[in-house]
Amino acid sequence: MAAHDPSITYKAAVIGAGSGGLTLAIGLAGFGHPVALIEGGDVGGDCTNVGCVPSKALLHAARTGTDDPFGWTQQRRNHLRDEETVEMAEHDTIALVQGWARLTDRRDPHVVAVDMPDGSVVEVRAEHVVISAGSRPARIDIDGLPESRTLTNEELFELDGPPRSVVFVGGGPISLEMSTAFADLGSRVSIVELEERILAQEDPLISDTLTRALTDRDIGIHTGTTIERFDNVTNTAMLADGTQIDDVEVVVLAIGRQPKLDRLDLDAAGIEHGRRGVVADDWGRTNVDGIWAVGDVTGNTLTTHGANAIGRRTVQAIALPQVPKVRGPKVIPNAVYSRPEVASVGLPVAEIEKIPSSARRRLSIDLVDTDRGFTDDLDHGVVVVDVERFTGNILRAAIVGPAAAELIGIFTLAIDNGIGLRKMFGMVHPYPAWAQAIGKLADEFTLETLPALPREFAAMMRGRVSRQLRR
Amino acid sequence: MAAHDPSITYKAAVIGAGSGGLTLAIGLAGFGHPVALIEGGDVGGDCTNVGCVPSKALLHAARTGTDDPFGWTQQRRNHLRDEETVEMAEHDTIALVQGWARLTDRRDPHVVAVDMPDGSVVEVRAEHVVISAGSRPARIDIDGLPESRTLTNEELFELDGPPRSVVFVGGGPISLEMSTAFADLGSRVSIVELEERILAQEDPLISDTLTRALTDRDIGIHTGTTIERFDNVTNTAMLADGTQIDDVEVVVLAIGRQPKLDRLDLDAAGIEHGRRGVVADDWGRTNVDGIWAVGDVTGNTLTTHGANAIGRRTVQAIALPQVPKVRGPKVIPNAVYSRPEVASVGLPVAEIEKIPSSARRRLSIDLVDTDRGFTDDLDHGVVVVDVERFTGNILRAAIVGPAAAELIGIFTLAIDNGIGLRKMFGMVHPYPAWAQAIGKLADEFTLETLPALPREFAAMMRGRVSRQLRR
Repeated sequence: MAAHDPSITYKAAVIGAGSGGLTLAIGLAGFGHPVALIEGGDVGGDCTNVGCVPSKALLHAARTGTDDPFGWTQQRRNHLRDEETVEMAEHDTIALVQGWARLTDRRDPHVVAVDMPDGSVVEVRAEHVVISAGSRPARIDIDGLPESRTLTNEELFELDGPPRSVVFVGGGPISLEMSTAFADLGSRVSIVELEERILAQEDPLISDTLTRALTDRDIGIHTGTTIERFDNVTNTAMLADGTQIDDVEVVVLAIGRQPKLDRLDLDAAGIEHGRRGVVADDWGRTNVDGIWAVGDVTGNTLTTHGANAIGRRTVQAIALPQVPKVRGPKVIPNAVYSRPEVASVGLPVAEIEKIPSSARRRLSIDLVDTDRGFTDDLDHGVVVVDVERFTGNILRAAIVGPAAAELIGIFTLAIDNGIGLRKMFGMVHPYPAWAQAIGKLADEFTLETLPALPREFAAMMRGRVSRQLRR
Repeated sequence: MAAHDPSITYKAAVIGAGSGGLTLAIGLAGFGHPVALIEGGDVGGDCTNVGCVPSKALLHAARTGTDDPFGWTQQRRNHLRDEETVEMAEHDTIALVQGWARLTDRRDPHVVAVDMPDGSVVEVRAEHVVISAGSRPARIDIDGLPESRTLTNEELFELDGPPRSVVFVGGGPISLEMSTAFADLGSRVSIVELEERILAQEDPLISDTLTRALTDRDIGIHTGTTIERFDNVTNTAMLADGTQIDDVEVVVLAIGRQPKLDRLDLDAAGIEHGRRGVVADDWGRTNVDGIWAVGDVTGNTLTTHGANAIGRRTVQAIALPQVPKVRGPKVIPNAVYSRPEVASVGLPVAEIEKIPSSARRRLSIDLVDTDRGFTDDLDHGVVVVDVERFTGNILRAAIVGPAAAELIGIFTLAIDNGIGLRKMFGMVHPYPAWAQAIGKLADEFTLETLPALPREFAAMMRGRVSRQLRR
């Protein structure tokens, strides 16, 4: 690791050492470019410290009955953080500047001011500035709820053990994963979601299947409502719909993410931004030349793999502007590691609903009705696919069920390469893998939409499909 | 269901009502064709009765601690068998002839003689004959081993409970799956394999990873040896390498499959056959026009999904000979539902070894070294890919690890559509899905083999890959 040298002009000043920032810093350093990486907190960002890494570790510890699940989770988290810090140190063209960055103006080279913990200000000059400042949990005030009982993902993994009873506010990925973990650990778990359903950005069939699965595990799900008041004498959450949740030990706020814009002084540099964050395109470009934004701070993606994917493109755009971009950007899937898992890929549901229904087709298969669902006594699971009606090209696919985050890769590869359900017809999956459900959807689509084939062929397909679907 | 009418000529006489035969019978019936389905045993064949269905049910019951795992397995198996029998009955162009078929001569229409349980012989005339007679477990005599302690997959699921101690002879899929189940049920489990490694048709790295995983679970693995003698006083299995396995309650023979040729009288019809079974091509064609063979009886595939896949092609070839076969046959993957799972797809290892090593490249990634491996405390897992050196086209892929049978679908789709690792470069997988390992292999290949790209780009990639691989 290099010491910061205020006299040089870096190739890039990277603001934030999370998933997006590390991709940029290490990527550009790999080209031999000097990079200033500006981070006031821990290297690794939310993912390593308070996000995907500890959440997956806690899910694993909870599922397998590990002694001291929180201690184990913290140990895993700390180990990975230390490893990333050491790894950063090995890059001798990266200078880590441990403070809080703010933009100054549109000068080229750009000048970033860094407020250091000791109150001093350090200047960083760079050809490019990459804003990868991340996000923080959005907060709301709940009448009567004491600070001592309020957690977010930033505090959750510091617990010593599972609370007796926990209420999650919000029904998104963090809430769903941690509900699974806490339910496994023996906590009484409730979810309170303002929208009419959990995981509201997904297809209603996805939300419904997941709701049934979690309800079966005694997770209380309250939708279309909110905590109106918390009685801190009886520790009762009073919901707007009149429901009371008694004996609540902690409330976890997981209502969404806010981009960390406050210290950046985006306006000084004239950078366009909105409620979701810095406005940036699929390559990380902002409205100001030479200033880029990647990851949660843009709101375009709110995942580690999303920040990493866009970050890789930004590295390429900065370091190799001459390399032609032969293919369009690849599609970025989503996953929730609840039990059952949820995963999806493709156009947002809202975009699909804008397509005339005559031009699209929705197919789904209940995983309970598959042979594997039968041998494994599955209670709830579904695959939903939206396709172009005439081509079978996949617009969106979503899965609730075992290994959903792995299965979604079949659809991701299909979308990236323009492989529709008709081309997937006849693809062979091992019996009785869950993936066979995808083969059945391809059968069903092909049966319905091959009017050019003799009617008899359709009849044959119907025989096979009904047999396979019925099981 | 129709009653058999000896006076009519069926479109097809299908010999055997297992996975292949049912695909043919139901497929052709879907076209309105009269079909005679000849089966002396239970409808559903090995898969439903003594194969994939009860094995997956037992694996599930064992893993989840179901009370009475064998009773539950039998109940699932019986339910599915009954369902298939009812379903067959609904097809009014299928006549089920419950006896044992034998071919007669090359006459057209072909005449199949059926030996009925009452000693009578029934004749079936058909334009096409499809041989889908299946296979049975190969048997060897072990000196001193009493019949009462000898099981195969045909008897295994009739047990009342797990034996105290079980030795599997053979280290293939059946043995590996049932070792997993019995170990979960508390049996002391050993595997004795004649070859130098278990799952000998796979890449050595696959066998090795699986061996380590099973050994960690206290499954004794003895390779390159065999049971020379069984002492039926002390119940000790004496191995050829001098090892003794004490206190053996049952020995399960799982050394491979033998095609059920003995009743068929293939020579009467002049049908070519060998040690593996009836000689047939990828569409089920034998050397005799109008006589087809599908599934285990051919030895070409020994799986339900393989019989189903070839069976679908045979249906198409019989019913729609005029429909052009626009694409070549799709690739058929394999899976073993042991824990960890194993799956593979593509050219056999032996075929790959014939390709000059300068024209191919083997890449692998240890799943333990991935982020998910770290959060989930994985002990053993690997992905191995053989590709064409210059194109990155996938020759074979194999996986040991969580959800291997699902993950393999990404490679299956890639092979079916000619998508090599270079085209997979930049494909996004959810963090931290196991599928990310596939992304890392694509990175590694692209890094190594893109000499046309500027050297700096390779340097960038190296940075990212080393970071991702190291974790």
